[in-house]
Amino acid sequence: MTTPRAIDRELLGLTWDEDPRHSSFVQVPELCRLDGKLYGGTAIAVSLLAMEVATGKEARWVTTQFVSTADVGDRLDCFVDVVARGRAIDQVQVRGMLRDELVFSALGSTALPRPGGLESHPLTMPKVAAPEEGTEWVPARPQLPDVGHHLVSERREVPILDGPPDKRMAMWTRLTNLPSVGETSAAVIAFLADMVPLAVTRSTGQVGAGTSLDNSLRIGTLVDTEWMLLELMPHIAVDGYGHGEVHVWAPDGTLMATGSQTAKLFAMQMPPPV
Amino acid sequence: MTTPRAIDRELLGLTWDEDPRHSSFVQVPELCRLDGKLYGGTAIAVSLLAMEVATGKEARWVTTQFVSTADVGDRLDCFVDVVARGRAIDQVQVRGMLRDELVFSALGSTALPRPGGLESHPLTMPKVAAPEEGTEWVPARPQLPDVGHHLVSERREVPILDGPPDKRMAMWTRLTNLPSVGETSAAVIAFLADMVPLAVTRSTGQVGAGTSLDNSLRIGTLVDTEWMLLELMPHIAVDGYGHGEVHVWAPDGTLMATGSQTAKLFAMQMPPPV
Repeated sequence: MTTPRAIDRELLGLTWDEDPRHSSFVQVPELCRLDGKLYGGTAIAVSLLAMEVATGKEARWVTTQFVSTADVGDRLDCFVDVVARGRAIDQVQVRGMLRDELVFSALGSTALPRPGGLESHPLTMPKVAAPEEGTEWVPARPQLPDVGHHLVSERREVPILDGPPDKRMAMWTRLTNLPSVGETSAAVIAFLADMVPLAVTRSTGQVGAGTSLDNSLRIGTLVDTEWMLLELMPHIAVDGYGHGEVHVWAPDGTLMATGSQTAKLFAMQMPPPV
Repeated sequence: MTTPRAIDRELLGLTWDEDPRHSSFVQVPELCRLDGKLYGGTAIAVSLLAMEVATGKEARWVTTQFVSTADVGDRLDCFVDVVARGRAIDQVQVRGMLRDELVFSALGSTALPRPGGLESHPLTMPKVAAPEEGTEWVPARPQLPDVGHHLVSERREVPILDGPPDKRMAMWTRLTNLPSVGETSAAVIAFLADMVPLAVTRSTGQVGAGTSLDNSLRIGTLVDTEWMLLELMPHIAVDGYGHGEVHVWAPDGTLMATGSQTAKLFAMQMPPPV
């Protein structure tokens, strides 16, 4: 059985029985949205880690569909089906279950590196200030005390200093309060990168929020790093639904992943001035 | 039961029994890759149409995972599971089967428009020449006679005239040889937009090709049109795998969809000079 990295164990708390295709985790407060429901970034991170352990190969892409939800303290089971097993590439499916109820489904591939394969790096990291100069991002949603992924993560927004003016957002993010912060994995990136609906909502010019219908991530080159930069690109909001994209950069300019999401968007009332 | 558009029926030949969640189609030559295997654009198009008919709502996004393949003349069955049914939004899963064998799986959402929802259109279509001025795109792969999606589609590459020089590609594409060409649907876009691996391969500077592991599409605003423009953006190729993105534009500048794919990449020998 492939051993998860220390940071994956500390963040997600996933445990396996004898079968590497079956694992479970408790939805502790750090794995919740700010309202105590399952955080989408948790579901996609768990999907990736479960795929990697079940196949012994590295995750290349995953799409996680959010079907239902769960509450603080619930224990969720993850079942992996390896629907095609090749020498280099496996096609994999994951179900996250709360007892008999489907909470999330995922499709993805894991694969061994193919040395000497075609290579290209056509994108460039946007020019931004350092994380320390960023503005801490505070969510607009109502919060429960002591519940939410912000208990183990931090986000600092920075302006983009190059390129044409557009609706992109840039945000440094990192895990916090875990012993192995600085290790990177596909799961860590997935947990931190679940911010596309924010950029889509903001591009509408209204105060609002989004509920993700899915979250897709494609893995590039992983670099161990504490901070990573999210370059968030809204694509379109129409009919009350929004799509957008994220590029995830290591501080040295390495593209670690790209992702995309669709969300149901809704306007929010501003709190009345005090 | 929601009735598919005429163009969907002509292109895919999907037929339903009494249950709108069960359909089938024959893999005619027009639905094949150039080597006679199932074309990925067919599988994602069928996934979208099956989702829409089963739920009576419009497709918003889909990810189709390619698990196995099928041959010219095979009949494939499509089974739809509606795993969550809401007033506005359904979460849906699709399996494409060749007898007992899983050929493709899809996750996606269909949803009714939510009038008065948040709206934004932050992207702009690149400036390009008209389709008539483009260069017809001829695939590098070996061809079987009279087999392939090019029997019902056409592609013309054009240079991008604005923006910084980069590795993007622009390609006009349309359906051909079908009575209802000019109607647009999510399925039509999916069938035509399956070109991301080409752009990723070309960005490596080598002659090669890609085999898609998946294909994801997110639907914006559909406009009836004959030609549509694919703006193809390679993201990264590493370890022998590549990721990239496509924006699908109507000629009037409407963003009809965005998509992304991961592919296994391989180098090809050039044919010897004659």
